[in-house]
Amino acid sequence: MVHPATVLAEIDQQFPESLARLFDLLRFPSVGTDPAHAKDCRAAARWLVAELTGMGFKAGLRQTTGQPLVVGSYEPPGGGRLPHILFYGHYDVQPADPLELWTSPPFEPRIRKGKSGKDAIFARGACDDKGQLMTFLEASRCWLKVHGSLPFRLTVMIEGDEEGDTSHIDSFLKANARDFPVDAAFICDTEMWDPRTPAINTRLRGCIGIEVTVKGPKIDLHSGLYGGPVRNPIKVLSAVLAAMHDRRGRITIPGFYDGVKPIPAKLRRQWAGLKFPAKKFLGDVGLAIPAGEQGYSALEQMWARPTAEVNGIFGGYRGVGSKTVLPAEATAKLTFRLVEGQDPVKIRKAFKAFVKDRLPPDCKASFIEDGGDSRGIAVSEDTPWIRAAKAALKDEFGREAVLVGGGFSIPVVESFKTHLKVDSLLVGFSGADDSAHSPNEKYDVDSFRHGTRAWARIIAQFAKE
Amino acid sequence: MVHPATVLAEIDQQFPESLARLFDLLRFPSVGTDPAHAKDCRAAARWLVAELTGMGFKAGLRQTTGQPLVVGSYEPPGGGRLPHILFYGHYDVQPADPLELWTSPPFEPRIRKGKSGKDAIFARGACDDKGQLMTFLEASRCWLKVHGSLPFRLTVMIEGDEEGDTSHIDSFLKANARDFPVDAAFICDTEMWDPRTPAINTRLRGCIGIEVTVKGPKIDLHSGLYGGPVRNPIKVLSAVLAAMHDRRGRITIPGFYDGVKPIPAKLRRQWAGLKFPAKKFLGDVGLAIPAGEQGYSALEQMWARPTAEVNGIFGGYRGVGSKTVLPAEATAKLTFRLVEGQDPVKIRKAFKAFVKDRLPPDCKASFIEDGGDSRGIAVSEDTPWIRAAKAALKDEFGREAVLVGGGFSIPVVESFKTHLKVDSLLVGFSGADDSAHSPNEKYDVDSFRHGTRAWARIIAQFAKE
Repeated sequence: MVHPATVLAEIDQQFPESLARLFDLLRFPSVGTDPAHAKDCRAAARWLVAELTGMGFKAGLRQTTGQPLVVGSYEPPGGGRLPHILFYGHYDVQPADPLELWTSPPFEPRIRKGKSGKDAIFARGACDDKGQLMTFLEASRCWLKVHGSLPFRLTVMIEGDEEGDTSHIDSFLKANARDFPVDAAFICDTEMWDPRTPAINTRLRGCIGIEVTVKGPKIDLHSGLYGGPVRNPIKVLSAVLAAMHDRRGRITIPGFYDGVKPIPAKLRRQWAGLKFPAKKFLGDVGLAIPAGEQGYSALEQMWARPTAEVNGIFGGYRGVGSKTVLPAEATAKLTFRLVEGQDPVKIRKAFKAFVKDRLPPDCKASFIEDGGDSRGIAVSEDTPWIRAAKAALKDEFGREAVLVGGGFSIPVVESFKTHLKVDSLLVGFSGADDSAHSPNEKYDVDSFRHGTRAWARIIAQFAKE
Repeated sequence: MVHPATVLAEIDQQFPESLARLFDLLRFPSVGTDPAHAKDCRAAARWLVAELTGMGFKAGLRQTTGQPLVVGSYEPPGGGRLPHILFYGHYDVQPADPLELWTSPPFEPRIRKGKSGKDAIFARGACDDKGQLMTFLEASRCWLKVHGSLPFRLTVMIEGDEEGDTSHIDSFLKANARDFPVDAAFICDTEMWDPRTPAINTRLRGCIGIEVTVKGPKIDLHSGLYGGPVRNPIKVLSAVLAAMHDRRGRITIPGFYDGVKPIPAKLRRQWAGLKFPAKKFLGDVGLAIPAGEQGYSALEQMWARPTAEVNGIFGGYRGVGSKTVLPAEATAKLTFRLVEGQDPVKIRKAFKAFVKDRLPPDCKASFIEDGGDSRGIAVSEDTPWIRAAKAALKDEFGREAVLVGGGFSIPVVESFKTHLKVDSLLVGFSGADDSAHSPNEKYDVDSFRHGTRAWARIIAQFAKE
């Protein structure tokens, strides 16, 4: 390992220029889901290509079924024997509305103190993901300036559909996997555990969705005339949904837990050590009593245990007042959060069988498969990338990085796993108070500085004297 | 009893004039719920007042909180010792739209053959209730013409809000009960059992409605971030609804069946003798398997057993596609059909307690009481009115009248019971194919003729030589 001291000094010394570049990127209103901003997305992508080119990368735009994809590649001298890293970020941002809730215009970045009293960069995309992706680019730039070359082959991939349709990048990776013979993916789009404790995310839950409609009588009927002998599909659906969990919060769909591995004891201990304030977490959303699977802490439930959630339900009369209707059908929208080892195809099949087993023979159920199709991910905690990141993060923050999980899915992680056959290293520096997706999104100036310095330290882990 | 032969001959002889008068009444587009037809309602009411006056009644309009109420009273010579009958009908009709589905204009009555091949009067209100109410008025008119006086005191009450807000007549009866010291109410607004078999309705189910909203987290949450430890109100509501019936279709709400009397064995036998085609009844609505309370036939379930029906349900995301939301609340709209002996107030209370017993302590439930508030009615089958009607109907149709029930409520029956303390005699002559409330409503010419003749025979039962 090369000591990163000179690179860190360079980062600090030229930090105003890093900030200026980030501000340039933040000024593009690159809302990927809004066709009115297609030009802005392309402009942001071109700006990134120019930056990468300026850093000595071979860079350009690749066409996808969505927004243009920025791809830059760096080949160090004698690179053939060096590992090949893919760095991933996204230049698209969430829509900025409601605009009236912003203190300063979302695409005119400003530095001012946030609620915590720290200086922060306020702009849409400040943390998600422009500020975060720039930590890596700025670290690479400074490393190159000091040392002339990076200690690995590097492909930078910055997409424009992360906040929208994630199938675009998936299709691209599927079709072009051979162009990316990489050894690992680095992603900077996650949070610190707390303002002083860095985190590496090694677990993400997958998500599959399914909509079920139970059909009973062929038309809506008068509940006075027909009520009694005629089956009510809302009752049938309610019974199915109520049967889906047992008294201990365990999901009763046969085969649902097939392939789910126990949480490693070491990880459970580490998570317990985080002293997650479950009471406050529930209190903040107006609840007091932990629901979910008994025998697991709230963190374990969110990071390492699958769920079956009903996201919506509807059937019969939904207007004001009363209508004595016996409805023809009722629908529920469900999503299942999956953990590593669960097979989305099998789970959907098992759910359908579970519903059909509970249907009276003269009722029918139809299904729409929707709402994601991602597997749960658990990254091995013993890879060179995680070891390097742990060491580097400890040096930068003076604290051990914690291995955390995420209840949500980051679909591109599964795309990398599926199409490029690589694990991702998920390291990020944003804070829980950064208001990603909300008005007044921010990124602390310290997050940007320490993030950049941390990446330099990670790069150093791979450099040989 | 006076033999009705001469009155029946008079009815038949002047039948074209009866038809002409019915046509006059059918020409008023007296849609009670449509303010644009307020004038037409008043005109129909005035026409009825004029008819009653012409028959020798003291008649006029009484003001209600809704449409004007037609009230006519007839006092026979020496009437003090005679029973006092209230005849009830309604001059308001359902809206006629969709107009394009009518073969002839809804307010231009025509006689043509119906699908059954019988001559029928086609018009909105033909059966519901103008044709039916006119059977009684025409019978009374012919009786008066032949005999000079009726064998009972008679108050005719024809309202204009039956298809709309039934609280108007209820309030009126409550406020003016002393003006109507009657012994029984006769209502002509029901069906025959089949085209050849007359029916007397002795049981009506009441109806109460309640909407329940289960509230969990104080805002909608991301089901990836919160799914697991956070309670889902759709699941809570589904569990409540699923628990409301046991495996045998019995309602599990404690106290729900308090006051419900067993169906008299004689009535069960009579209903069984009707050979109700439950299989066809279910088949017609696309079902095959009887649901509801085991141990009871379909007819018993509809006529004499209470139900708990979910008329509507909604919560969370209900748009197209998927949304990974963990919703803050979920709502169900319920109605309970009640039978005689059940107390609506107690049932509502018991349901609320049932819900609350099943709520996790950090969830809340709120309720809206709506959708009717009527008790179930069971008329004694051994009254002079029913005996008279049975004898008269047998004479007219050559078949025993069957005592039937109705799954629905006729709120005015409860109003008569509550405010005037009298039972109602429910006799009607319309057919299941009359399309009440639908386009091409009709009333068979035979229904009108036999109905008129049947009432004459009922009147005869009370006449002394």
